[in-house]
Amino acid sequence: MVIDYHPFLARLALSPARHWLRSLPADLHQWQQSNLHGDFADWMKVLKLLPDVKSTACDIENKVQFGQASDIDSGQKARLEALLKKFKPWRKGPFELFGTHIDTEWRSDWKWQRVLPHLDDLSGRQVLDIGCGSGYHLWRMKGAGADLVVGIDPSQLFVVQFKALQKYAPPDIAKDVELLPIGVDQLPELGCFDTVFSMGVLYHRRSPIDFLHQCRAQLRSGGQLVLETLVVDGDEQQVLMPEGRYAQMRNVWYLPSIPALSLWMRRCGFIDIKIVDINATTTAEQRTTEWMENKSLEDFLDPNDNNKTIEGYQAPKRAVLTARRP
Amino acid sequence: MVIDYHPFLARLALSPARHWLRSLPADLHQWQQSNLHGDFADWMKVLKLLPDVKSTACDIENKVQFGQASDIDSGQKARLEALLKKFKPWRKGPFELFGTHIDTEWRSDWKWQRVLPHLDDLSGRQVLDIGCGSGYHLWRMKGAGADLVVGIDPSQLFVVQFKALQKYAPPDIAKDVELLPIGVDQLPELGCFDTVFSMGVLYHRRSPIDFLHQCRAQLRSGGQLVLETLVVDGDEQQVLMPEGRYAQMRNVWYLPSIPALSLWMRRCGFIDIKIVDINATTTAEQRTTEWMENKSLEDFLDPNDNNKTIEGYQAPKRAVLTARRP
Amino acid sequence: MVIDYHPFLARLALSPARHWLRSLPADLHQWQQSNLHGDFADWMKVLKLLPDVKSTACDIENKVQFGQASDIDSGQKARLEALLKKFKPWRKGPFELFGTHIDTEWRSDWKWQRVLPHLDDLSGRQVLDIGCGSGYHLWRMKGAGADLVVGIDPSQLFVVQFKALQKYAPPDIAKDVELLPIGVDQLPELGCFDTVFSMGVLYHRRSPIDFLHQCRAQLRSGGQLVLETLVVDGDEQQVLMPEGRYAQMRNVWYLPSIPALSLWMRRCGFIDIKIVDINATTTAEQRTTEWMENKSLEDFLDPNDNNKTIEGYQAPKRAVLTARRP
Amino acid sequence: MVIDYHPFLARLALSPARHWLRSLPADLHQWQQSNLHGDFADWMKVLKLLPDVKSTACDIENKVQFGQASDIDSGQKARLEALLKKFKPWRKGPFELFGTHIDTEWRSDWKWQRVLPHLDDLSGRQVLDIGCGSGYHLWRMKGAGADLVVGIDPSQLFVVQFKALQKYAPPDIAKDVELLPIGVDQLPELGCFDTVFSMGVLYHRRSPIDFLHQCRAQLRSGGQLVLETLVVDGDEQQVLMPEGRYAQMRNVWYLPSIPALSLWMRRCGFIDIKIVDINATTTAEQRTTEWMENKSLEDFLDPNDNNKTIEGYQAPKRAVLTARRP
Repeated sequence: MVIDYHPFLARLALSPARHWLRSLPADLHQWQQSNLHGDFADWMKVLKLLPDVKSTACDIENKVQFGQASDIDSGQKARLEALLKKFKPWRKGPFELFGTHIDTEWRSDWKWQRVLPHLDDLSGRQVLDIGCGSGYHLWRMKGAGADLVVGIDPSQLFVVQFKALQKYAPPDIAKDVELLPIGVDQLPELGCFDTVFSMGVLYHRRSPIDFLHQCRAQLRSGGQLVLETLVVDGDEQQVLMPEGRYAQMRNVWYLPSIPALSLWMRRCGFIDIKIVDINATTTAEQRTTEWMENKSLEDFLDPNDNNKTIEGYQAPKRAVLTARRP
Repeated sequence: MVIDYHPFLARLALSPARHWLRSLPADLHQWQQSNLHGDFADWMKVLKLLPDVKSTACDIENKVQFGQASDIDSGQKARLEALLKKFKPWRKGPFELFGTHIDTEWRSDWKWQRVLPHLDDLSGRQVLDIGCGSGYHLWRMKGAGADLVVGIDPSQLFVVQFKALQKYAPPDIAKDVELLPIGVDQLPELGCFDTVFSMGVLYHRRSPIDFLHQCRAQLRSGGQLVLETLVVDGDEQQVLMPEGRYAQMRNVWYLPSIPALSLWMRRCGFIDIKIVDINATTTAEQRTTEWMENKSLEDFLDPNDNNKTIEGYQAPKRAVLTARRP
Repeated sequence: MVIDYHPFLARLALSPARHWLRSLPADLHQWQQSNLHGDFADWMKVLKLLPDVKSTACDIENKVQFGQASDIDSGQKARLEALLKKFKPWRKGPFELFGTHIDTEWRSDWKWQRVLPHLDDLSGRQVLDIGCGSGYHLWRMKGAGADLVVGIDPSQLFVVQFKALQKYAPPDIAKDVELLPIGVDQLPELGCFDTVFSMGVLYHRRSPIDFLHQCRAQLRSGGQLVLETLVVDGDEQQVLMPEGRYAQMRNVWYLPSIPALSLWMRRCGFIDIKIVDINATTTAEQRTTEWMENKSLEDFLDPNDNNKTIEGYQAPKRAVLTARRP
Repeated sequence: MVIDYHPFLARLALSPARHWLRSLPADLHQWQQSNLHGDFADWMKVLKLLPDVKSTACDIENKVQFGQASDIDSGQKARLEALLKKFKPWRKGPFELFGTHIDTEWRSDWKWQRVLPHLDDLSGRQVLDIGCGSGYHLWRMKGAGADLVVGIDPSQLFVVQFKALQKYAPPDIAKDVELLPIGVDQLPELGCFDTVFSMGVLYHRRSPIDFLHQCRAQLRSGGQLVLETLVVDGDEQQVLMPEGRYAQMRNVWYLPSIPALSLWMRRCGFIDIKIVDINATTTAEQRTTEWMENKSLEDFLDPNDNNKTIEGYQAPKRAVLTARRP
């Protein structure tokens, strides 16, 4: 009922992030101790039922695909699909597993296409993704040449979704990609990553300044931050905090304008700050699917004016900024 | 060389804030251990040299006065004044000690006059002042009838200035007024104070939301918060963060508009939020004196336009809001 | 359902043991948190049912008596007795409450008579009793003139028995006598007590050397230790450890000879070590009573040879040693 | 100036002792932080000066030899020997490095010969040596087939002596043998070792019972303890504690008879307790050498009666007991 992170810890011990060993094993143990029951226990049982199939195909450069239809018989395929559906809702993707297409709420591949041209070459790099969800982008980072890719996200469902995918990844790839179930507050100041991603997290933080400091503290000098968050239009002094929900999301705090966000990043000691993408989220990129049957963006926008959320705020617009630790 | 807080701890053990004993004695000990050397050690020696004089007058209702000129001979007066000047700069006041007028940078009595009409009657109440400086307002709170008044502020100089004053306060008042050298992050969730003040702190916090949560957690249900901070003009989405210094102050983070600040307070669970005072700080209220010889507000404003700081931001304007914990 | 130790903590804050405040309130809170359920909760309810009677007599010099028969009517007396019997077994005593004689398993008054002549005059002293049981001797120490008497013992039943007695002690005595439910390992090095007692504890410790160090660390320089423990006959190298039970007691470790015990005390830095009493426990001093209906010493001795326990070891012999911290 | 234990931690992460990662990396870091200065810093510099030579011979089955004379030129040999002598005194050995014979105070190989016949076959086993000194026996345990051999000893000098040896061990052996600078109190309850050694430690412990419990807690069920300690003659109740020094050693506590020691082990839950060796230490086995020029056993015995220490106690006699965790 417990996930064995020791092979990854052995990998970590020989990486530039090795100092993390001072706290990470205890944090992982603590997380497992407090997640022994409820849904998680059930999901772990499902995980153990996944068929042991050998995948003969893998593509993480152009999409996230493990295995192909011919690796698996029709009974196994049905079984695999049924088991994976127990992990609904699937938010970020899509994934392709032995011919099964997991059509997730988000076209995270589109976001990746927009971000990719602006990244430092990931070849051979140590990469950290803070708030990685079920880890779609982790695989793409590895596909872009990274040496070691670590995501953190404390949500139980994301952990089991990731573990289901990782099971079918080729071992020499699987060993370099891990999702650790810890929160950003548990990160020590590692100062060793070449690239740190954080996409879709900042607006959920009660203290964006502390969060930016945390991101910076993980980078080596010269390392690159890739930050995506919700923004609003306006000048350096424009910052939206919703009264209650925002596009039906709870727990949304600060939505700065791009100039305000840039200023925050300067105050946190980042340099070379660049706005590399601005994108109003469309109902083509975020929508209800067979694998995520809940409401989605279409339901969160004002039916009479798609430029507004149903609460009357500016509709979701996301910016990607890159910056560097001096 | 060490301050004895045990008489206060005995007082606290019999007050509604008694649960604080679980962490406060250790925090105070820790603070003393890390402040044994440097200026503080010298100041503590000065403190011990203060003449032992009995004060026959005390007024904390209309000002902060302990002793009168006739309590003390001219040699003692000269000595007292010389020693007190070793604690310069004196920021908040003024104080009157045995006929010596400590003319501080700020006319904190003016602020008190503006705030007083809007306070819940302080008679018999438990009061906490977060970031109390050298404690001018602590005495006025006691003067307004409070039962127990506790201020927190971790700065060494404020502690010794407070202790110099407390030495000359009548014992039955001195025992009910204390300044504890701890930071707001060291406050447990006491949930017991009738009134919590925080004046001039919020703009120094990296996370105003966490700070407001901390203030709320100290109040009993129904208790009153009195919050003063720098604000800017504008609507609910207007928030200034200076690029570097603000009016020459370092470490200034968020300056919200009043509507933005009100929204933050609502998000933190406060009710009955009222704007009770808005005041553009004048060079009559904050200025260089014999007891604070450094530069002051006049030097921090644009010489050609007193509506601007020398950095070009809106000149200091302070708002006082009151609110209640439901 | 929780015991309020804050009045005692206020008392402690003004005593030489005030530094204990750094850890004691948190330890007491922790103890209460882990003792909310089971027997203890029931006992606490019984405690609340004890009649509120004013006692007009008190003798702690010659015995432990609070109240006299005439303070109470016959219904109250019956009720009091019935409630107190819910706290059986009563081990150490005897106590006299409003004419009710609590006839305990042990005649602890006999032990006190043997020890008393060898004590430093207790007048005005700070006294600690490590492993005080339900606290019979605490009252006698106060009766001998001590200023403050603190016992520690983490057993729930002893705590409620003590609280029942303390309820009827005169307030000016009750405030100076407290039983704290903590273990010896939770004692910081207080170095402030004039006299430290530990009677009947050492043979239950896995490490007598560490225990003696702990006792020493609580004494001020020149302070007196009064140590009572089970001993065996023999020279400096004679130490009995029972294979299993000893006189039916579990958890018995080292029973040294008196010369061995003296040597241990010297190794732990004690001086002026004196053997002040050696006493083979009799079935008159330890026996089954109406208030302790379980088996007692008579059942624990070899029926054919009262010089042996039923396990075949030397029958219980207890020595009292006094010593001093240099 | 810091030792890199991360390769070993990677090894550990894949071993049965992997749970140790929850505390060990932090403990190692803490040790390094508190050992940055003084002798240790100098010794670390010496360590870095050791010549980089490739050893073409290795024998850890019959002795501890790395390299042979022909691997090294005469200048290097002189340099190596001079540097190694900076690590004097060398206590346990002997070692042979590229033809240099490190003639240590103790013939630890003799002890190994006496113990070896009584060990469970070490092939493929996980072995822990508590209080391993500079690690002579660690190499012999590996030579006897162990899979992983971990010694703990917090002494700085032992650490640098071990690291000097380890530098010349073949990499595939060096990776399986490590000395960790931590104390026995820092061991969590690992419950995973097949064999636990502790030789020459118990008499230095203030609490032998707690020490035996610690040893037991490291063993898997069925695992073997190999315990060597100083003993005295006598029955189950015979235990010597010296008044001051014993054979000039400070910090000696309990010297039990063999029957007393066996009883202690039973009380701590060991089974299959066997006395496998009793040996009066001779001046041939422990003596002053060119590599340990201080006084040795000859000086610690009564010159008129070699059966007594100069303090008049029974001369050193050592017993080896084996036992098993049920």
